[in-house]
Amino acid sequence: MNYYSDSINSLIEEMAALPGIGPKSAGRLAFHILNMPEDRVNRLAQTILTAKQKTRLCKECFNLSDGEICSVCANEKRNHKLIMVVEEPADLVAYEKTGQYDGVYHVLHGAVNPMVGVQPENLKLKELLQRLAREDVEEVIVATNSTVEGEATALWISKYVKQAGIRVTRIASGVPVGGALEYVDEMTLFRALEGRTDL
Amino acid sequence: MNYYSDSINSLIEEMAALPGIGPKSAGRLAFHILNMPEDRVNRLAQTILTAKQKTRLCKECFNLSDGEICSVCANEKRNHKLIMVVEEPADLVAYEKTGQYDGVYHVLHGAVNPMVGVQPENLKLKELLQRLAREDVEEVIVATNSTVEGEATALWISKYVKQAGIRVTRIASGVPVGGALEYVDEMTLFRALEGRTDL
Repeated sequence: MNYYSDSINSLIEEMAALPGIGPKSAGRLAFHILNMPEDRVNRLAQTILTAKQKTRLCKECFNLSDGEICSVCANEKRNHKLIMVVEEPADLVAYEKTGQYDGVYHVLHGAVNPMVGVQPENLKLKELLQRLAREDVEEVIVATNSTVEGEATALWISKYVKQAGIRVTRIASGVPVGGALEYVDEMTLFRALEGRTDL
Repeated sequence: MNYYSDSINSLIEEMAALPGIGPKSAGRLAFHILNMPEDRVNRLAQTILTAKQKTRLCKECFNLSDGEICSVCANEKRNHKLIMVVEEPADLVAYEKTGQYDGVYHVLHGAVNPMVGVQPENLKLKELLQRLAREDVEEVIVATNSTVEGEATALWISKYVKQAGIRVTRIASGVPVGGALEYVDEMTLFRALEGRTDL
């Protein structure tokens, strides 16, 4: 049975289709939106449309951007011979927030995952190899996630980048800063041991 | 520092302004929306606008409705002499889902809460009293929440409804069905004892 009007049901369905929003939260969000003043609702809808319309992918690194080239690629002070490969724009932002990386990026928009049909050709991998052929790159840092898919993608990249005669590195895997060994999983402890460095 | 373009920042801010959405979830939602196909994004924005534009309050009971009168009030099979007073449209839906109530409703759109400036005149209380004067009502069931605000509102309603010479009842407060006494709070246990009925 239908307890809400069609337009409210549609709104709840749209909310429930967003990631991490269950049916209860979807209802709460919908009622919140219906309770907002009309101009706030219009602004919400307009912001969604504007963000989608204006945002495109940087033609160099495929980061999200308002223009042809993203602000990182457009920055001449960055080291353009150093490329960090990440899975998603959010990963790029995470490294930008450290303020400790001065190279540029390459955003794959995913990781190889044959289980859900994501093959290398669905990612911006061909574009990475083209970029390496076109530009003067000294090192590719692979910063894909430390998951099965991220590691598989890292292996794939390392194979082709090595063939191009360019140094390829992988960010370290180990115990997170502030992490108590007791609560760290075995795989991570093993990786931390393998990756030990001289003191 | 700004890691995203203005339009993406605005989108993240709009998402973060929704209830129950923290900064991390806001970012995830924003990226999800940017990754959706353009027609899906347009549909999302349009659904929000349509729901807001079409939805108004039933002029009888102030339930959310597509028309002048909501489907409950328009249903002649319902007992219009029995009015259940609830705080929010979602509470009405909760009782509708039981399928066990055949009266009509009155939605207050809140509860008296002087701490945040919600006075009786901010709720649809005057409208309730007008309705009682206008219509032939036999009983008003007060189903406001079992919170301090809900109880205060219930007392306020009971005072005025009694003055109008109409029977006023309160839904029972007690141990939830399936609830183990051990985990039920003391106030609820006390209420359950007070409200005990003959077996």
